[in-house]
Amino acid sequence: MSDFRKGSEERILLAHGAGGSLMHRLIKEVLLKYLDSEELAPLDDAAELAVDGGRLAFSTDSFVVKPVFYPGGDIGSLAISGTVNDLLMKGARPSHLSLGFVLEEGFLVDDLMRILESIRQTCREAQVGIATGDTKVVNRGDVDGIFINTAGIGSILPGVSLSGRNAKPGDVVIVSGGIGEHGIAVMAERNGLKLGGDIASDVMPMNEIVLPLLERFAGSVHALRDPTRGGLAASLNEIAEASGVGIVLEESAVPVREPVQAVCELLGFDPLHVPCEGRFLAVVDASVADAVVELLRNELACPLAAKIGDVADSEGGFVQLHTTSGGRRVLDMPAGELLPRIC
Amino acid sequence: MSDFRKGSEERILLAHGAGGSLMHRLIKEVLLKYLDSEELAPLDDAAELAVDGGRLAFSTDSFVVKPVFYPGGDIGSLAISGTVNDLLMKGARPSHLSLGFVLEEGFLVDDLMRILESIRQTCREAQVGIATGDTKVVNRGDVDGIFINTAGIGSILPGVSLSGRNAKPGDVVIVSGGIGEHGIAVMAERNGLKLGGDIASDVMPMNEIVLPLLERFAGSVHALRDPTRGGLAASLNEIAEASGVGIVLEESAVPVREPVQAVCELLGFDPLHVPCEGRFLAVVDASVADAVVELLRNELACPLAAKIGDVADSEGGFVQLHTTSGGRRVLDMPAGELLPRIC
Repeated sequence: MSDFRKGSEERILLAHGAGGSLMHRLIKEVLLKYLDSEELAPLDDAAELAVDGGRLAFSTDSFVVKPVFYPGGDIGSLAISGTVNDLLMKGARPSHLSLGFVLEEGFLVDDLMRILESIRQTCREAQVGIATGDTKVVNRGDVDGIFINTAGIGSILPGVSLSGRNAKPGDVVIVSGGIGEHGIAVMAERNGLKLGGDIASDVMPMNEIVLPLLERFAGSVHALRDPTRGGLAASLNEIAEASGVGIVLEESAVPVREPVQAVCELLGFDPLHVPCEGRFLAVVDASVADAVVELLRNELACPLAAKIGDVADSEGGFVQLHTTSGGRRVLDMPAGELLPRIC
Repeated sequence: MSDFRKGSEERILLAHGAGGSLMHRLIKEVLLKYLDSEELAPLDDAAELAVDGGRLAFSTDSFVVKPVFYPGGDIGSLAISGTVNDLLMKGARPSHLSLGFVLEEGFLVDDLMRILESIRQTCREAQVGIATGDTKVVNRGDVDGIFINTAGIGSILPGVSLSGRNAKPGDVVIVSGGIGEHGIAVMAERNGLKLGGDIASDVMPMNEIVLPLLERFAGSVHALRDPTRGGLAASLNEIAEASGVGIVLEESAVPVREPVQAVCELLGFDPLHVPCEGRFLAVVDASVADAVVELLRNELACPLAAKIGDVADSEGGFVQLHTTSGGRRVLDMPAGELLPRIC
């Protein structure tokens, strides 16, 4: 039975924004009940729209990361990369972004300038422009520092059709690099952990990886997803559910850099739950899987890219983990909120 | 000299988000220094993009109104109407919106449902769909209840070219209805004033007014703007500055409903500074001005539509007010923050 009944005293929990099972219930049992639309229904990272005869991708994200500056990035580079990457995951070449600031009265103008400089640089890297914007200022205490929303549009490449719904039995799952670096960098900064420069956020716009990949393998790539909130575990469960397929994940094949593994052990996190902001999962036809990994590793500067799993022919909708120690278990959608304000 | 120097201890003030002169300085001296782009430069309510051979309008707004429910509207109807109206001001037929929530831990699910119902109804009225969305939840105290960002796109009507830069000497300025109703309704609710049902927010999507107007008068309409933050005074100053023209405003011609006037006198507000969310200013060729007012009044359910001013041949960039009492003065861009969190 749904928790979400009219007239109940039910309240929003942190976990409702965590990318896991509670968030998916909020989306399905509340948001989609009111907002159902053809474009929204696939719950991909971006929507596909038919506009003026073209195929446009459209996406939005709000960024509430705390602290706003952390090793390897800040809320500015994150806000641009996040929406650029969501458009790429739909097979689009990002072209224009909107930028909405909500600022707390008293926020340092110097910090705003530092964030803007980072936005400018990331826009240049991603070859996108800020086309339209909005700035609101609220009273001290009504927001914690700065929140940023970006929305973005881009044209979907010809011959490309990507959706979490498109995974097919026999497909291979590939990850583009080591996981968890964004989440661990932010958590470490927030908690004052000294990591000796070993961990920096992976945040980056992935145009120069994803676009060449799609240009080469167009129709053989079935789904792309960037494992942000909820990490790899959430993204794989989303694909399994949307496609109605099983996914078998080989834990030992998942690239996790040693310092990330160490901090995860220290803090009790499973790296499979920790967000990335510059990595993607690709579900590809088995016939091109080796070639995709080779292209990523040798030409697209992704040395840790690897095949990490297969889409199984079994009963659909869940992810099975073959653990490093030889066991097998269901890899659930993360339930609670481990990492609030991580993006 | 700019207040905004690197290394200063300058801080963001509420007035930097108020729609007036301090906000325009923040935009020009900080934001545009980093984000300059062809699309952003005109500072219209929406940007015009060339995408896939079509002309697309693209706009964004964040909504932080407090309280979230008030006579005549709520943050949900406001978030949809605000972005829909910004697209209309660029001469576009709104088609798709994005919707980003930032929720405070502990927010009542019932209130979220009430807001979603209002979003659904307003989308239906405006004939737009929510194509993509995002939901973040932050810790209690990190945001005040709920903030919403919407971005939107729509195709610009053929033969229509609207910009605050297009006002020409001899043009006539028209307003579509009584001003200030949104701002006064929100302020009254916030301060517990009992208005006996006399004032409700004017918030509404204006498709059914603006689209027929543009279909009939296409090229003779030069600029449209909805006077939200900073009210009529800010919008007229923006147009005067962007077009390098003078504007003469006849105070006695500006429609202000009696209860709005009364509350303004009580609280010490100038109605010319109070935001509307369902009214627009049109700068039109003098040859069609009477016909535009007639269409608005008789066919488009805007009984208070009126000619309120002229674009003057004089030295440009400012607004002159002919006051009700027969005086003349410059109508400045509002400077400070009278009405925080009004939209």
